[in-house]
Amino acid sequence: MPDFNIGERFKVTLFGQSHGLAIGCVIEGFPAGVTPDWEKITAFMARRAPGQNAWSTPRKEADRPEILSGLNENGLTCGAPITAVIRNSNTHSKDYEALRSTPRPGHADYTAYCKYGDAWDGRGGGQFSARLTAPLCFAGALAKQVMEEKGIAISAHISRVGTVEDEKPDAVNPRFPLYESGAFPVIDAEKGEAMKAEIEAARQRGDSVDGAVECFIAGLPAGLGGPYFGGLEGKLAQALFGIPAVKGVQFGDVRHFGSENNDAFCVENGAVRTVTNHCGGILGGITNGMPVYFTVSFKPTPSISLPQQSVNLRTMAETTLAVQGRHDPCVVPRAVPVVEAAAAIIFLDMILQGV
Amino acid sequence: MPDFNIGERFKVTLFGQSHGLAIGCVIEGFPAGVTPDWEKITAFMARRAPGQNAWSTPRKEADRPEILSGLNENGLTCGAPITAVIRNSNTHSKDYEALRSTPRPGHADYTAYCKYGDAWDGRGGGQFSARLTAPLCFAGALAKQVMEEKGIAISAHISRVGTVEDEKPDAVNPRFPLYESGAFPVIDAEKGEAMKAEIEAARQRGDSVDGAVECFIAGLPAGLGGPYFGGLEGKLAQALFGIPAVKGVQFGDVRHFGSENNDAFCVENGAVRTVTNHCGGILGGITNGMPVYFTVSFKPTPSISLPQQSVNLRTMAETTLAVQGRHDPCVVPRAVPVVEAAAAIIFLDMILQGV
Amino acid sequence: MPDFNIGERFKVTLFGQSHGLAIGCVIEGFPAGVTPDWEKITAFMARRAPGQNAWSTPRKEADRPEILSGLNENGLTCGAPITAVIRNSNTHSKDYEALRSTPRPGHADYTAYCKYGDAWDGRGGGQFSARLTAPLCFAGALAKQVMEEKGIAISAHISRVGTVEDEKPDAVNPRFPLYESGAFPVIDAEKGEAMKAEIEAARQRGDSVDGAVECFIAGLPAGLGGPYFGGLEGKLAQALFGIPAVKGVQFGDVRHFGSENNDAFCVENGAVRTVTNHCGGILGGITNGMPVYFTVSFKPTPSISLPQQSVNLRTMAETTLAVQGRHDPCVVPRAVPVVEAAAAIIFLDMILQGV
Amino acid sequence: MPDFNIGERFKVTLFGQSHGLAIGCVIEGFPAGVTPDWEKITAFMARRAPGQNAWSTPRKEADRPEILSGLNENGLTCGAPITAVIRNSNTHSKDYEALRSTPRPGHADYTAYCKYGDAWDGRGGGQFSARLTAPLCFAGALAKQVMEEKGIAISAHISRVGTVEDEKPDAVNPRFPLYESGAFPVIDAEKGEAMKAEIEAARQRGDSVDGAVECFIAGLPAGLGGPYFGGLEGKLAQALFGIPAVKGVQFGDVRHFGSENNDAFCVENGAVRTVTNHCGGILGGITNGMPVYFTVSFKPTPSISLPQQSVNLRTMAETTLAVQGRHDPCVVPRAVPVVEAAAAIIFLDMILQGV
Repeated sequence: MPDFNIGERFKVTLFGQSHGLAIGCVIEGFPAGVTPDWEKITAFMARRAPGQNAWSTPRKEADRPEILSGLNENGLTCGAPITAVIRNSNTHSKDYEALRSTPRPGHADYTAYCKYGDAWDGRGGGQFSARLTAPLCFAGALAKQVMEEKGIAISAHISRVGTVEDEKPDAVNPRFPLYESGAFPVIDAEKGEAMKAEIEAARQRGDSVDGAVECFIAGLPAGLGGPYFGGLEGKLAQALFGIPAVKGVQFGDVRHFGSENNDAFCVENGAVRTVTNHCGGILGGITNGMPVYFTVSFKPTPSISLPQQSVNLRTMAETTLAVQGRHDPCVVPRAVPVVEAAAAIIFLDMILQGV
Repeated sequence: MPDFNIGERFKVTLFGQSHGLAIGCVIEGFPAGVTPDWEKITAFMARRAPGQNAWSTPRKEADRPEILSGLNENGLTCGAPITAVIRNSNTHSKDYEALRSTPRPGHADYTAYCKYGDAWDGRGGGQFSARLTAPLCFAGALAKQVMEEKGIAISAHISRVGTVEDEKPDAVNPRFPLYESGAFPVIDAEKGEAMKAEIEAARQRGDSVDGAVECFIAGLPAGLGGPYFGGLEGKLAQALFGIPAVKGVQFGDVRHFGSENNDAFCVENGAVRTVTNHCGGILGGITNGMPVYFTVSFKPTPSISLPQQSVNLRTMAETTLAVQGRHDPCVVPRAVPVVEAAAAIIFLDMILQGV
Repeated sequence: MPDFNIGERFKVTLFGQSHGLAIGCVIEGFPAGVTPDWEKITAFMARRAPGQNAWSTPRKEADRPEILSGLNENGLTCGAPITAVIRNSNTHSKDYEALRSTPRPGHADYTAYCKYGDAWDGRGGGQFSARLTAPLCFAGALAKQVMEEKGIAISAHISRVGTVEDEKPDAVNPRFPLYESGAFPVIDAEKGEAMKAEIEAARQRGDSVDGAVECFIAGLPAGLGGPYFGGLEGKLAQALFGIPAVKGVQFGDVRHFGSENNDAFCVENGAVRTVTNHCGGILGGITNGMPVYFTVSFKPTPSISLPQQSVNLRTMAETTLAVQGRHDPCVVPRAVPVVEAAAAIIFLDMILQGV
Repeated sequence: MPDFNIGERFKVTLFGQSHGLAIGCVIEGFPAGVTPDWEKITAFMARRAPGQNAWSTPRKEADRPEILSGLNENGLTCGAPITAVIRNSNTHSKDYEALRSTPRPGHADYTAYCKYGDAWDGRGGGQFSARLTAPLCFAGALAKQVMEEKGIAISAHISRVGTVEDEKPDAVNPRFPLYESGAFPVIDAEKGEAMKAEIEAARQRGDSVDGAVECFIAGLPAGLGGPYFGGLEGKLAQALFGIPAVKGVQFGDVRHFGSENNDAFCVENGAVRTVTNHCGGILGGITNGMPVYFTVSFKPTPSISLPQQSVNLRTMAETTLAVQGRHDPCVVPRAVPVVEAAAAIIFLDMILQGV
């Protein structure tokens, strides 16, 4: 399967380079007859847009997609692939010129060169750029809309920045959305302030900081998924590890001993439920009807202005480099809707497949 | 894609139920003209076989596969799918009879019932059973042989049992294999003894304990993988989360700040390398030529003999249940070759695909 | 996708070589809770079995599959992959020894050598052998059973042998099964006799003869399939061209002019139908609720005992060769159930996918 | 797999509706570092463009694609997905208004309604429109360029219109391109004139006529393809049946008897060749190094201005309808490059996969 495809029946294909003409996506398998809720889509996409506040990059993006196909003359989805295009603008390609021969540590510059050679469009990270999460969020917003109509809620929060951890949601009866405010989505506002301080401190040092996002999905039917490679964990992980900077995915909240980790079954309003939810709503790769949740950890942004050692690929001499340009000192705040989008896409795919 | 398939060009399809007639696999896309190294295959499969020592279940399995297809009259692979069959024997199905109506907490019993209904062959966990990792190891041993001929080494160790952690390998220049002895594969023998004590303590309590496996792969060419959903992390994760009891996968060894997490580039013997290897050999989803490594965390075995609360699905009454039968109090020691097998399969698939 | 897989959600993987230990298949995605109708399965498989009469090879095969997995203790399908194995026996490998260096014209000997090299197991055609249609028929029989329970009928007949054509079924209201007798499935018994004479004449000359199979499927819901590459024709064709010796696939019964080819719509018992059915029940790649039908043409068996020119691949000298061994002078009679099986597999896959 | 995808490693995803904002495609897996030959691409796309002459529809399309992604700043392919967009213009949607409730015989109107319901964008045939073969030709032109650089030639001709057949190419040593002039690509100009007369006669009657396209590919290495479902015929057929109006695909030129159909092997310039080429360059699903060829048959355009019987889906009353608008009376002339494009895509995919 090529690199920019996710999903089988509900399938999203991303395209574009950071500083090319446009980025976008083609969405296949979306149900016909749906009127996209543009207000919600715009609000959802705005949650990942940059330049909104102190803790994200001051770049501005007008991420309003143009819909080239997939809608009928009345604006309903018509069964054809939905194509969304976001034109690139406000790109400062000269910022990256020096980096062509000297790969930035922690970035894809060197490995892209190994894979694509000199033809790689390295401006702004090319097709590795996190900018492609904008069309992913567009697809996720559409998926989320269908999920919501089926009574399925999806919400994520910043669970950690550096060493500062947010409060844990109630894994049995989580509140949706998990966070108080979408601007900096945390459960505990005080912890949120500490996180912002951590990010600001990193920025002022010319450094960056890592973090994690936790995502909850409730309202799923029991029985989704399958054993072995059909398991929910693997399908979600493939999507989640596709998000730039993700280095870890953990399901549920595992305890060290079986006696404390096993979730006792109980009956609630005539239905089978579990008393605790350490398994994250998944047993044997299949939903058990309890909320599904998982944590996605992100590495610190590799773009830092502190000087770093690299190698000039033309001369093969070691050299020192300082990354210029505007970068988020922490990707996690803007990654929250991206994680929600990835989850929405995978679950809609599974629900449409009936597996 | 159905549940028991992994890989695209080099593809493994598992089959069987724990207490059915047989388990096995069909392996497609394996190169023609290879003489399988049966001694190595047998030794590799023996590493996951049960009943070898105090810390694993006393069940005996004669896991010598019969090869139904894929070899020519001289025993070389001939390009046809390779089919391996392991007959089941020594099954104590009566141990599981009572569990049919009363799902075991932490097991797939309830979710399998939701998905397949009453026809599910729940004996021994049916197709959810970790017994199917035996044919996975067979396929992995074949893949490993081809990899070794290409100069690629794969080795995993028990990195944690409960709260006891093994020593970390050198992430820049790891030793292969990582462990001293295959019987209980750890780097630090003393830590190994502490782990065994932890497992034995759990067993005596009628409890079980969790743990983790860390896997290293060296000798890979730079340039394998791709951006976004073509990333190495996602492909490996899909295979790794397919292993029963896996709940988390983490790549590399992320540090909190970019300044310490970014791996500086350097030149060594005329080649580009990195001074440290926090990224786990992967940048932008693509190998950078340094060792790839990741940690897979396993939940504690759900089968414990301590009494647990469940629900009788016929009567919908809450009830208490104690799991009988022979079970590993910790899956991690036997999971080490399974993790190696999953990694070998995914990398061989990528190498054969040339991506 | 590897060579021996067909289907996406309902997926069949064939394995084996003609003269290896066994042939068989793994069937994934079959519904749980079905009791296979063994009498029907055996009867269906017998229709393709050799050695039954004058016009097929005198080889005997005991094609009763052993089911290694996929059934629960009560014989119902349990949701696990269904594995069927047919042991090979009565193989005369010496018949083929001379052919190793000298490829038979019209056979896969030369191209298999190009692809797999010397390691190819050429005995009896290896994995190219039509013997692998036996497990395909097993999978098809299972699929047919589920289809029949949904009111969908599938039947094929010999539509041509050499220049002798069978009567055409009524394309609007075909009778099921199409043929009078399964032994030599034709509509017009007199045409059947002429076909048999054609086959017998070829056999006596040491020659072989081509032919065609026409297949009808009725009872399908309108709306199955999709535009472009999701079209029914392409999906069926991929399966049908997978059958050895197939060289052509034609849907419906196209007339030269639009005015005679377009099928007028009409209303029958309150439902939309067409007056004629030249389109073969498919418009825009999607079923229209009328019977689907298509014709599959087979080349004459390449194994003939007449002398033929070939090349010795070791010496690169041109040479003359006469194929020994027992071969059908016409593959078409035994191919009829194979075509039905391929159609049943594809349609069940589409129905389970809901596309 | 969704409806608008073709290829596995080299993958083309089409999008758009006939009268929507735009049509286009995303092309994944195309090699990096290629400078597209825009002159050749434009010339190739022009061969399928309408409005060029008497025998095609007078509609005008400015089918110059805008490339949104996949090229670097110097115009070379950069490894990112290549996205091409063709804006729609000159659409006469009112021509189709009346057809919404009354499906045109032979068209996808009724089956699209069954599949998508009222939301289907039926204007101009929506996503079923042959207009989407324009981006398919763009992708095919790119694939053809890479193939040509590898010494692989692809050329098709009109082999039949109604009952008029073109001369057959030499199947052993075909000339490339097969035709004298791209405007009406036939081998025998006299037969071409008879075909044009047939088309003109149909047009004047308000009718349409069927036909066929034959395609040759030479320069392929021996060993491409595989047994059973990996066979070249099935892979090509899936792409070819994806082209609107295709109802049949036939490989090679099968003779009735094995003795005349088998192609004798010979040695030519030290290489294995065949004396004749009835098998169409494919044995056992695998190329044998001889030219591959096949014939694709197209039904007559369903859009005819003669009155036809249909059903009003709102009232369920039978009614008479005459299709207005501008339509090709024969799709075959413009389908010739489309067949070449489909073949180029499939072969490039196989070559990049190394299968």
